[in-house]
Amino acid sequence: MIDKVLDFLSDKKYHEAKQIIKNMNAVDVAEVFEELRENSERDISLKLFRLMPKELAAESFAYMDSDTQQGIIEAISDNELKYILDDMYLDDFVDMVEEMPANVVMRVLKNASQRNRALINQYLQYPDDSAGSLMTNEYVYFKSRLTVSQAFNVIRKTGVDKETIYTCYVIDSERHLKGVVTVKDLLLADPDTTVGNIMSTNVIYAHTLDDKEEVAKVFSRYDMLSLPVVDKEDRLVGIITIDDAVDVMQEENTEDFEKMAGMVPSEDTYLKTSVFKLARNRIIWLVILMLSAMITGSMMEQYEAAISALPLLVSFIPMLMGTGGNCGSQASTIIIRGMALDEIELSDFFKVWFKEIRVALLCSVVLSLVNFFRIWIQYQDLGVAVTVSLTLIATVCIAKSLGCILPMLAKKLHLDPAIMASPMITTLTDAASILVFFNIAINLLGSRL
Amino acid sequence: MIDKVLDFLSDKKYHEAKQIIKNMNAVDVAEVFEELRENSERDISLKLFRLMPKELAAESFAYMDSDTQQGIIEAISDNELKYILDDMYLDDFVDMVEEMPANVVMRVLKNASQRNRALINQYLQYPDDSAGSLMTNEYVYFKSRLTVSQAFNVIRKTGVDKETIYTCYVIDSERHLKGVVTVKDLLLADPDTTVGNIMSTNVIYAHTLDDKEEVAKVFSRYDMLSLPVVDKEDRLVGIITIDDAVDVMQEENTEDFEKMAGMVPSEDTYLKTSVFKLARNRIIWLVILMLSAMITGSMMEQYEAAISALPLLVSFIPMLMGTGGNCGSQASTIIIRGMALDEIELSDFFKVWFKEIRVALLCSVVLSLVNFFRIWIQYQDLGVAVTVSLTLIATVCIAKSLGCILPMLAKKLHLDPAIMASPMITTLTDAASILVFFNIAINLLGSRL
Repeated sequence: MIDKVLDFLSDKKYHEAKQIIKNMNAVDVAEVFEELRENSERDISLKLFRLMPKELAAESFAYMDSDTQQGIIEAISDNELKYILDDMYLDDFVDMVEEMPANVVMRVLKNASQRNRALINQYLQYPDDSAGSLMTNEYVYFKSRLTVSQAFNVIRKTGVDKETIYTCYVIDSERHLKGVVTVKDLLLADPDTTVGNIMSTNVIYAHTLDDKEEVAKVFSRYDMLSLPVVDKEDRLVGIITIDDAVDVMQEENTEDFEKMAGMVPSEDTYLKTSVFKLARNRIIWLVILMLSAMITGSMMEQYEAAISALPLLVSFIPMLMGTGGNCGSQASTIIIRGMALDEIELSDFFKVWFKEIRVALLCSVVLSLVNFFRIWIQYQDLGVAVTVSLTLIATVCIAKSLGCILPMLAKKLHLDPAIMASPMITTLTDAASILVFFNIAINLLGSRL
Repeated sequence: MIDKVLDFLSDKKYHEAKQIIKNMNAVDVAEVFEELRENSERDISLKLFRLMPKELAAESFAYMDSDTQQGIIEAISDNELKYILDDMYLDDFVDMVEEMPANVVMRVLKNASQRNRALINQYLQYPDDSAGSLMTNEYVYFKSRLTVSQAFNVIRKTGVDKETIYTCYVIDSERHLKGVVTVKDLLLADPDTTVGNIMSTNVIYAHTLDDKEEVAKVFSRYDMLSLPVVDKEDRLVGIITIDDAVDVMQEENTEDFEKMAGMVPSEDTYLKTSVFKLARNRIIWLVILMLSAMITGSMMEQYEAAISALPLLVSFIPMLMGTGGNCGSQASTIIIRGMALDEIELSDFFKVWFKEIRVALLCSVVLSLVNFFRIWIQYQDLGVAVTVSLTLIATVCIAKSLGCILPMLAKKLHLDPAIMASPMITTLTDAASILVFFNIAINLLGSRL
C-alpha cells in the first residue's frame, strides 16, 4: 500500500494517492513521509501533507521520525503547526522537542499553548532513563465521592483528548493517588454507587525518578496497560502507557545485545549513526581486549623453546582458543539473559555453577573424544592426542565457570552483568587455555620439547 | 510482602498471612505459591489456597508456573478445580493444558465445561509458533446494526468474563470481521446512533496461521492493545492481547541471544532445563565450530618452518584472532539486531557494507598504531611491527565485512540471520587472520624464516 502511494505521488497522481491514504493507518502514512524525506522529495511531501484530512495529518505526524518531523515543521505555516501541536499527546511532544535543533524548538514552543509550554518545561527536566521521561499527562482522574454516572460524564467530557481512558485514577484534594477504577468496573457497576466504593486501593505505581527499565518490568510482570507515576510527595503527576513500556523493553534488549558484543550502546539506529560515532562506540572495548590478548601473547614467549621443538603444537591453538571462547560465551549469554529476565537470582549461584560444571564435563568429553581420535589417526601421536584432549576438558570447564561466575560477580558488585559477556570471557579463556595447554604439554611431552 | 507472608506461614500464623494476602496482587500471590512449592511445602500450600478468597485463589492460579499449578490440581477436590477452571481465560487454560502430563490433563478436561473442552481441543491444534496458539476467545462482538446503547448492554452482559472489553469487534451474520469500535468511541458517541456508523472499517488483523513473531511486530508497530484473528474464510475466531504479544517479543529476544551465542534455543528457563538438555543444545555448534577451527589449525602446519625459525610470531596469534573475532561480532550483532527490528533492510546492503568498511579502517588504524609502537619499543623489530600492523588492518576489514555480509546473506536465503553471529564469524575470521598473517610475514620477513 505504501509503495502504491509512492508510485502515484511520483506520477503526480495526487487524487489517487489521497484516496488510498485516507484509509491508511497513521503509522503507515508516517512511513510514506519518511520515504519521501529519504528521497529528498520536499515539495511532494508538503503537497501531500496539505492534501490529507487534518486529523490524519496530525496523527501521522506524531509517528514520524524526528528528521521527517523537522522537515515538515520547517515547511508548514504557523497556523498549521499550531493545529498539529494542539493535537499531539504530551509524551510525543516532549520526545519530539528533545530531538530538534534549538531554532526549531523555539518555533515549536512559540506555537504551543501556554499550558503545554509549561508542562514541557517540567517534563524535560526528568532524567533520560527515569519513569518521568516516559510520562504523559493525558489521563482521566476524579475524586472518590463521584458516582459512577458522574464519573462517566467526566470521561465523556475530557476523554477525547486522553491517551488512555480505560484506567481512571482516583485522587484526593491534594492529588494524592487513592485508587484506580477501570472503565470495565464502571460499566459493570450500579450507576448510583460512588467511585470510592468500587475502586481498587491496591494500586501499583512508580515514582518519577524510578529507572525506566524497572518500570518496563512492572508492566510485564503485572500485565498492565498503564501505570500511574507519583512525585516525592506521592502526588499523581502522570501516567505511563504500555506502548512506551514496550519501546523501553526493546531498547534495553538492543542495549544488552550491543554491550554483550563489546560495544558502547548507541542512541540512534544503525543507519542514522555516523561512521565516526560507530567507530568510537567500538574502539574502547577493542583496545582493552587487545591489550589483554597481548598479555596472553607475551605469556607464550616463555614457551618458545617448546614451540621450536614441536611446532605442530601451535596448530591446535586456534581450535583450543575458539572452543574455549564459544563455551564461555554460551554460559555467559544464558546467565546474563536469565538475570535480565529475573529468572536467575544471585542466590542461585551455587546451583548455577554446579549445573555449568556438569554441562562442561558432558560437552568437553564429547569434544575431547573427537579430538583424540582425529589426532591419533592423523598424526599417530598418542602424547599429543592426550595433551590436546586433557587441555580441552580443562579449558571448557574454566570457560563455563568464568561464564557463570563473572556475570554474577558483576551483578553482586552492582555493575551491569552484560559487560562480562562473550568478548571479555573469550579473552580470559584464551589466556587460560594457552597456559594449561603448554603446561600439560611440558609435563607429558617433556622429553621431546 | 512476599517474604512476610512466607514468614507468617512457616510460623503457622495463618490468620496474619491471610490478612496480608487478601490485599496482594494475584501475580505476587502466585509467587508465594511458587516459593512454597520450591520448598516442598505441599500442606501449607493447600491450606493457604483454601484460606484465600475464592476469586483471588482462581486469579492467582492462572499466574502460577505449570509445576505449581500441577501441585495444586493434584491436591484440591473436583469441585474446587471446577471453580478455578470456569474462572480461567481460555488462552491461560490452553497454555496450562499444554504443559501438563496426560493424567492431569484428563482430570482437568473432565472438570472443564463442555464448551471449554471443545474450544480447547480446537485451540490445541494451532501450531506452536502461530497466531492461533496465542488466541483467546474472550472478546466482545456484535452486529453493526446495534445502537450504541444496545452495544453497552451487550458489553455489560458479557463483559465480566472477557479478557478485554475495550476493543469490540463488529461481525456480520457469517462472523466475517467487518469493523472495530473502542469503548472510547462508544462512550463519546450519541447513544442512539448505530455501531455501524461509528465503527472503523480499516481493521488490522492476523490469520490463525501467521507467525507469532510477525504478530508481535504488528502490536509494536501500531501500538495496539488487542488484535483480532481470522480463519481462512476471514471469519473472526479469536483475539490476541498485548500481554501475550509482549511475552512473544521477550521470547524471541531470548531466542536470538541464545542463537547468537551458538546455542539451540531452549524451551524452558535455565534453572528448569536439565543438564543433559543444556549440553545437547550447546554441543551441536561446539562440534561444528571445533571442526572448522581444526581446519584453521591444519592450515598452520604449512608454516611450521616459519614458526620454528621465528617463534615470536606465534605470540601475536591470540591478539590477532581475538581482535578479529571481536570486530566481527560487533558488526554482526549490530546488523542482526537491526534486521530483527526492521531498521536495516536487505536493500541497504551496500550502504551498510560501505559504512562497516569505513568503521573498520578507523578502528584498525588506531589498533595498528598501538601495536606498532608496542612491538617496536619492546622488541626493536621493525619488520615484525609492520607485519603485525598490516595484518591487523586486513583482519579488521575482513571481520567487519564478514560480520555484515553473512547475516544479510542468510536473510536473503531465508535463513535466520542470528546463526551468522559471533561464533561463526569468529571462526571464519580466525582462519582469515592466520592466513593473512603468515603470508605477510613470509613476504616481508622472508629472509629470516
